Amino acid sequence: MRADAARNRARLLEAAARLAAEHGAANLTMEAVACAAQVGKGTVFRRFGDRSGLLLALLDREEERFQAAFMAGPAPLGPGAPAAERLHAFGPAVLRHEDAHRDLYLAAAQPDPVRRHTVPARRVRLAHLAALLREAGTDADPELAAQTLLGYLDPGLVRYLLSGRGLPLSRVEAGWHDLVARMLPAEAR
Amino acid sequence: MRADAARNRARLLEAAARLAAEHGAANLTMEAVACAAQVGKGTVFRRFGDRSGLLLALLDREEERFQAAFMAGPAPLGPGAPAAERLHAFGPAVLRHEDAHRDLYLAAAQPDPVRRHTVPARRVRLAHLAALLREAGTDADPELAAQTLLGYLDPGLVRYLLSGRGLPLSRVEAGWHDLVARMLPAEAR
Repeated sequence: MRADAARNRARLLEAAARLAAEHGAANLTMEAVACAAQVGKGTVFRRFGDRSGLLLALLDREEERFQAAFMAGPAPLGPGAPAAERLHAFGPAVLRHEDAHRDLYLAAAQPDPVRRHTVPARRVRLAHLAALLREAGTDADPELAAQTLLGYLDPGLVRYLLSGRGLPLSRVEAGWHDLVARMLPAEAR
Repeated sequence: MRADAARNRARLLEAAARLAAEHGAANLTMEAVACAAQVGKGTVFRRFGDRSGLLLALLDREEERFQAAFMAGPAPLGPGAPAAERLHAFGPAVLRHEDAHRDLYLAAAQPDPVRRHTVPARRVRLAHLAALLREAGTDADPELAAQTLLGYLDPGLVRYLLSGRGLPLSRVEAGWHDLVARMLPAEAR
């Protein structure tokens, strides 16, 4: 991509992110993005294909920032802390991150029940969790334990627990810490 | 519903279940059901609304049978065995049941990431697991632990693990038994 095209794309995404934050990702339209970025509607369609392409691009942008935080950011979420501490920090970080962008995560959720598990962002989180579980000396099957941990943080489940069931966030966070501890040997919890 | 209407509906479902078993639920059409049951296509549409109504009715029928098995069938899945044994038996029973009807569960899967968690069948399973966890004296939060256990048995995840990742069923089952044990106090595992 030429440099001006990349800048153009970044500017459109910036405008879309601002609109999504103000009015909710569910209400985001290609027209509103074009208007906010002061370009023609055709430019937005050319850049992102359609509305779901735009939502995916927004999600990628947020997910890249979050990945940078857990892979290279400050400890205990990032490297430098013991693996068990990083596992404990991961849950609240995901809950906070997805709460800030919840509409986006729900709007872009993959509807196919099998393909949902092949989404790249999910595989990055999964590999991260499995690596930390191994490093912390888990006595569980690391791949299946990572799936279990990730399943607990599913945006649809979290939204259901908080809004549908009315659980306080503190209880969902406590459930995360308890689950992490159960996956680790007693001395590493 | 009048008795003949109920019989009529049962006969159509019987035909649909046979077709789904032979050709896969993904390939089920209203026309094929009408043809197999020797009625007009309009009768099938009148009875089930549309194809997704038919799939949901088929799923309800299978789910009722499965619920009868874990709520009133023989131990250790049904009552009579200690709660921990019933928890251990639940996972392989779900895996077997959903494997036999996997196309149906995937075809009827609720695409909305939040509403997925409000499906009646899910709530019945959840209440069952939470009750068994309490009875077995879990030291975890029973509602959250039940969500964790149920998330492990998600049909999309299981299909992904078996087909996408190529894990043997025995490893997925072993993961279930390990997860159940981690949710129970040492003396009840």
